[in-house]
Amino acid sequence: LKAEIIAVGSELLRPGRRDTNGDWLTERLQRHGLEVTGRALVGDDVARLETAIRRAAAAADLVLLTGGLGPTEDDRTRDAVAAAVGAPLVRDPAMVEHIRGLFESRGLPFRSHQAKQAEKPEAARWIDNALGSAPGMLCTIDDALVVALPGVPAEMQPMFETVVVPWIRTRAPSALVRRSLKLAGRMESTVDRAIRDLYDTPELELTILAGGEGIEIQLLARGATDEEARRTAAAVEREIRDRFPEDLYGVDDETLAEVVGRELRRAGRTLSVAESCTAGLLGGAVTAVPGSSGWFRGGLLVYHDDLKRTLAGVPAETLASHGAVSEPVARALAEGVRERCGADMGLGITGIAGPGGGSAEKPVGTVHVALADGSLTEHWGVRLVGDRALIRRRAVVFALDRVRRRLRAERNGS
Amino acid sequence: LKAEIIAVGSELLRPGRRDTNGDWLTERLQRHGLEVTGRALVGDDVARLETAIRRAAAAADLVLLTGGLGPTEDDRTRDAVAAAVGAPLVRDPAMVEHIRGLFESRGLPFRSHQAKQAEKPEAARWIDNALGSAPGMLCTIDDALVVALPGVPAEMQPMFETVVVPWIRTRAPSALVRRSLKLAGRMESTVDRAIRDLYDTPELELTILAGGEGIEIQLLARGATDEEARRTAAAVEREIRDRFPEDLYGVDDETLAEVVGRELRRAGRTLSVAESCTAGLLGGAVTAVPGSSGWFRGGLLVYHDDLKRTLAGVPAETLASHGAVSEPVARALAEGVRERCGADMGLGITGIAGPGGGSAEKPVGTVHVALADGSLTEHWGVRLVGDRALIRRRAVVFALDRVRRRLRAERNGS
Repeated sequence: LKAEIIAVGSELLRPGRRDTNGDWLTERLQRHGLEVTGRALVGDDVARLETAIRRAAAAADLVLLTGGLGPTEDDRTRDAVAAAVGAPLVRDPAMVEHIRGLFESRGLPFRSHQAKQAEKPEAARWIDNALGSAPGMLCTIDDALVVALPGVPAEMQPMFETVVVPWIRTRAPSALVRRSLKLAGRMESTVDRAIRDLYDTPELELTILAGGEGIEIQLLARGATDEEARRTAAAVEREIRDRFPEDLYGVDDETLAEVVGRELRRAGRTLSVAESCTAGLLGGAVTAVPGSSGWFRGGLLVYHDDLKRTLAGVPAETLASHGAVSEPVARALAEGVRERCGADMGLGITGIAGPGGGSAEKPVGTVHVALADGSLTEHWGVRLVGDRALIRRRAVVFALDRVRRRLRAERNGS
Repeated sequence: LKAEIIAVGSELLRPGRRDTNGDWLTERLQRHGLEVTGRALVGDDVARLETAIRRAAAAADLVLLTGGLGPTEDDRTRDAVAAAVGAPLVRDPAMVEHIRGLFESRGLPFRSHQAKQAEKPEAARWIDNALGSAPGMLCTIDDALVVALPGVPAEMQPMFETVVVPWIRTRAPSALVRRSLKLAGRMESTVDRAIRDLYDTPELELTILAGGEGIEIQLLARGATDEEARRTAAAVEREIRDRFPEDLYGVDDETLAEVVGRELRRAGRTLSVAESCTAGLLGGAVTAVPGSSGWFRGGLLVYHDDLKRTLAGVPAETLASHGAVSEPVARALAEGVRERCGADMGLGITGIAGPGGGSAEKPVGTVHVALADGSLTEHWGVRLVGDRALIRRRAVVFALDRVRRRLRAERNGS
């Protein structure tokens, strides 16, 4: 099965813009065994877009469009799909009422131009939008399924999963299995060296990615049957797990925060955080997981040094003699926040994210993390690389990974 | 002058890949006043590529291809250009000798398949490659200049500068000026309605984007001279500023957090935050700005209700009678964090980010924000839409924007 992706919007053709929807769809389509044979970025121009849709429909089995479904003047995807189908746009009274209801339920005025979103060629079918007012639509052109999805990722992604994925399942005797293995605490080059012999595994493609969440090893296994592809992937996964028993924290879409949350819930424990250089990013990451109130109590943003004292109880003399970015301060933060938040565990972070504030002794990237549980307080000092944003993100991953390792070691009785 | 970019290579259609040549060319072309009307990523397929070249040549004045000029089996750009021109590939003996000379001068064996790189349609012209063996080529199709460049950035970029830029200079005596205006606190459709009359401004293109940071209005102005384009952009910017004097918070790459930081510094004031549903995202956003220690003191992550009491001093009876997501709790959080962090201003957020926790009275998306400065505590209640991640991001933008508006009003003496 072949697929083409068309991202709609003149803004995508400006410098510095990225077609992140197309990137996401490429990844998903390939995960489901489709080959992406082309991608296009097209401005808000009906004729140009119509040509792109026709060409893509002639070349592929599935054409995915993103963007241009809103109510404004420059939202032209509906017009272009109608032109490509060769049928006029017809307003659907039931959809007008649905959108009107959405506005009313939110206490917003429904204005006439919003009704534009309720227009489609007669033969097209609606795709419900659970989060926004612009519905998607699908139709057939040249034996290809053409699907128009909104440009807002949070709206587009669930529509892809509920409509496109089931369609693929019925068409593609999927003999492609994809698996991502996620590792923290290792460098890309170390991982590469350790698994190099697996690159030659028949029917398997291995890719290593280094992102903000550590290292990701992507496996793409092929087989005559699903069962066969799955067997190949499972064998290689077992091999990699054996080589990184402690660093491998999750698979596929699992985030480190989700894994930490699961371990905390399993252990029946709660976490609190005291953040200096990350100033909220750690708390934000932990609570991105639905249900995090079950294991996260809260924390302290001790950005200024006097708050390290007054809010977290770090002794003034510790700050004075060691400096705010130091092991003793990280330890005192972890112990202080644990007690003041009434949590089982306290995690403290202090560091220098840059661009200013570094010195020869404590350069930008110096980060101290401590974890206290009432009986033991552990400490780790690291030197992280990157710009301000990357150092802060890496500090969050480093700190969360320490919690994961501690809970894992306890669970294994060590 | 309109341009289209085609990146060639099946590897570009794999997940995690990026068309960095296309990104670079987009930036350069727009710097030289061309409008990029479309971009495509095409695999190593002659028929598919030929269609893409023909379509682009029909739509634009300049078509740039990158990649697919090497000596291997899957380098098919030459074949596709020949097919689009409608003429056969002819081997150029002089170019064969040139390439052979390159190999010999490097002490490398010249193999027969390398001669493939010396083939072009008769009417096409060579473009010298100063760094590699694959020459580029240019020809005319449908009155459009079609230029094929290698995929290696270090080879492609100088060829663009030496051949394409001089061609543009002789054709396009026009300048292009770009400007982004950023607004918070307005819906996309409201902004669209309010500026609809400006869509017809001659020599101007207006685009509205709704992102996580509010609404962005992009202006793209054209003129015979830089001065003229600048005048058009400035006139429209003034007009939009007049219509949204309070909502327009910044231009171009400015973030809301940067603007708030600047206003705080200008006013000589400091901020602190008490976060429940955002649990650190607000602090994280404020401290993403380098130098934020000058205006941000710190904060409290009062995720659990008892921490709203113990850390921020919200009275137990307020929590009991109004619930954690309520105006009185938001007010008490703002006042409490202001005092406990020794800041001039305290910002409190409490809300329901979902997916669980909503009720008929307080559905998911209900957010209360309060801002205290010692003399006055203001409160705002909103109902935000989106999934958990989007509601949290929108709550951060809403809260930051309240600080910006307060400081702005004070500065204007109101």
